[in-house]
Amino acid sequence: MAEKRYLMTPGPTPAPPEVLAAIAQPVIHHRGPDYRELYSNVLARLRDVFRTDQEVLLFGGSGSGAMESAVANLCSPGDPVLVVSAGYFGERWAALAKAYGADLDHLRYSWGEIPTADEVAGRLREREAAAVFFTHSETSTGVVLDPQPFAAAAREAGALSVVDAVSSLGAVPLETDAWGLDVVASGAQKALMTPPGLAMTTASPAAWERTAKATSPRFYWDWERTRKGQQTLDAPVTPPVSLVAGLDVALAMLLEEGLESAFDRHRRLGRACREGLKAMGLELSSPDDDSSAVVTAARVPDGIDSDELVLLLRDRHGVTLAPGQGDLKGKIFRVGHIGYYDVFDITTALAAIELGLAELGAEIERGVAVTRALDAFEHAPV
Amino acid sequence: MAEKRYLMTPGPTPAPPEVLAAIAQPVIHHRGPDYRELYSNVLARLRDVFRTDQEVLLFGGSGSGAMESAVANLCSPGDPVLVVSAGYFGERWAALAKAYGADLDHLRYSWGEIPTADEVAGRLREREAAAVFFTHSETSTGVVLDPQPFAAAAREAGALSVVDAVSSLGAVPLETDAWGLDVVASGAQKALMTPPGLAMTTASPAAWERTAKATSPRFYWDWERTRKGQQTLDAPVTPPVSLVAGLDVALAMLLEEGLESAFDRHRRLGRACREGLKAMGLELSSPDDDSSAVVTAARVPDGIDSDELVLLLRDRHGVTLAPGQGDLKGKIFRVGHIGYYDVFDITTALAAIELGLAELGAEIERGVAVTRALDAFEHAPV
Repeated sequence: MAEKRYLMTPGPTPAPPEVLAAIAQPVIHHRGPDYRELYSNVLARLRDVFRTDQEVLLFGGSGSGAMESAVANLCSPGDPVLVVSAGYFGERWAALAKAYGADLDHLRYSWGEIPTADEVAGRLREREAAAVFFTHSETSTGVVLDPQPFAAAAREAGALSVVDAVSSLGAVPLETDAWGLDVVASGAQKALMTPPGLAMTTASPAAWERTAKATSPRFYWDWERTRKGQQTLDAPVTPPVSLVAGLDVALAMLLEEGLESAFDRHRRLGRACREGLKAMGLELSSPDDDSSAVVTAARVPDGIDSDELVLLLRDRHGVTLAPGQGDLKGKIFRVGHIGYYDVFDITTALAAIELGLAELGAEIERGVAVTRALDAFEHAPV
Repeated sequence: MAEKRYLMTPGPTPAPPEVLAAIAQPVIHHRGPDYRELYSNVLARLRDVFRTDQEVLLFGGSGSGAMESAVANLCSPGDPVLVVSAGYFGERWAALAKAYGADLDHLRYSWGEIPTADEVAGRLREREAAAVFFTHSETSTGVVLDPQPFAAAAREAGALSVVDAVSSLGAVPLETDAWGLDVVASGAQKALMTPPGLAMTTASPAAWERTAKATSPRFYWDWERTRKGQQTLDAPVTPPVSLVAGLDVALAMLLEEGLESAFDRHRRLGRACREGLKAMGLELSSPDDDSSAVVTAARVPDGIDSDELVLLLRDRHGVTLAPGQGDLKGKIFRVGHIGYYDVFDITTALAAIELGLAELGAEIERGVAVTRALDAFEHAPV
């Protein structure tokens, strides 16, 4: 039998068969009534998922494109901005701000550290900023922030809050309007369960005001052009119609499950993964609490190279985990549980990790991880 | 029976079932060996299709994104550029050049006029330009240029030649290296027979030199970042893996047919479409010669609104043609024959047009178009 494959990376994530079937339908014309209806449905469903009454701007591209659109539409060269980073994707905000010639104040934490809103507020008292860019779920480390105090600190200092929610949207609570998040950038290839190639952002009235004055050049990522196109259901450029059809199905599935149920499922998936890994005797490198519902990261035992473990699991057992990035390369592995996952995906990942570590000669506790995970998924800790 | 649908627009175009099946495969990780192999194959096949030894840069996005990348990577604000336009997509070059603050000289023809290289050379003698932007196949009018004399005129004036080949690549001859085209921008959703969402550009050594000095801000569309990623098969951002899998299958089909055979097929499809429309008594608005192998445009008889014809064919008969754009709105309709088309697609389009015009009360010749098209497809005019 051809080897079965298990995709356990924190993005792209597995797409449900219903979504794959939708993207395989014959191509439709983006100016015809079929697409207009689809476009309208997807835009409405996105507003529900982002929990906003604002237009959710939909682009063909990756999450980084949505992030770039935020920088390009909000910043003019020389604008003072604050970037908060504590991992790979926080660094991306800094790279984008530099690329657009913003005057960057970089509040940079070690990878895996947990930024605090107090420090952000302090930094904003020292130096004003037009916008504060931060990361809701830092996929490289597994840290998930509560965006609310960060947005409040920005607002108090007269700055816009701009949130990378690429790996968090649909997995953990996010309230665009209620929390006063000025800009939320995301992508479809994580908890929205769609193959990669679609990105989106929201913009508050304050963000729209700023956009009108921002002089950075832009066309494809231009928010105003995109909003105009969406308001007349006439896409500004040829959209990835097949992926949009997939996203429509995926959003319907997510909303039918209910966002609160999906958040609860992700919390319990994280809990199951953590308890299973700890039962094996491994040390977590992502936080050991319910905030960590997107990706779980663990250190490998001394003497083991985590890159080697990831390769072995992939090549010998068909299970794809994510390796450590940057400073954490070789030291950790990451298990994604974003989107189309249930507890048996977690037990598969744990069984594979147990097997792989044993094959590499690591001394780990065997035979306990799966049962502990099943138990943790069902029963919240007392 | 549910209505059968026929997509006859000049983009997006129908994707072969094999391509749709490929994009519906389970999602794979873009940093794993499966994707690296796919990425490598696609990049090699793209070089064959572009007929270049240079790296073909692959992006998630639409053809307009590839065009924007050319402007962003070649131009600094204030750079003098020449844009040659004679339709909707020529205007896009002008809009992009303006968005990036280039000092634009706009050689603007009426829609449907055929630009000449002599006029371009004359314009370049009057005012120097860093780059000349023009359109190989103007999808809004059906005009296809020979890019060679335009590239030569640019080269002679010390300017880079930048070609929009979105609807031409794979349908009509295009030799990136042999013709000295500095930059060729294209997309996968036309003759490359893949659902929309992938764009690509080439860059000559002279273009790369210029890129190193261009100060326009860019990240997602940055050529150097993209080239570095491709050279290590490590995509710079999460790519649309499913669409790339589809493109791989489509490129293999195109190369197996052979580019010269594909060009010949497109020439004969254009010929069949023109002869059929003329047999009905319609006047062509696209050129009546073999250059016009991508999209055929025809005027509707007096008293008929072409928008109404397009709506009727789509809503009553399931056949989607493209309407006229801009100045040509209401006056013409366009039949795309780019990519996955054979002669029976043309006869279907002609049969539908004959039926629709008759239903609208137009006086046309009935019962001759299909046979004339079949004959023209088989036999070149003497």
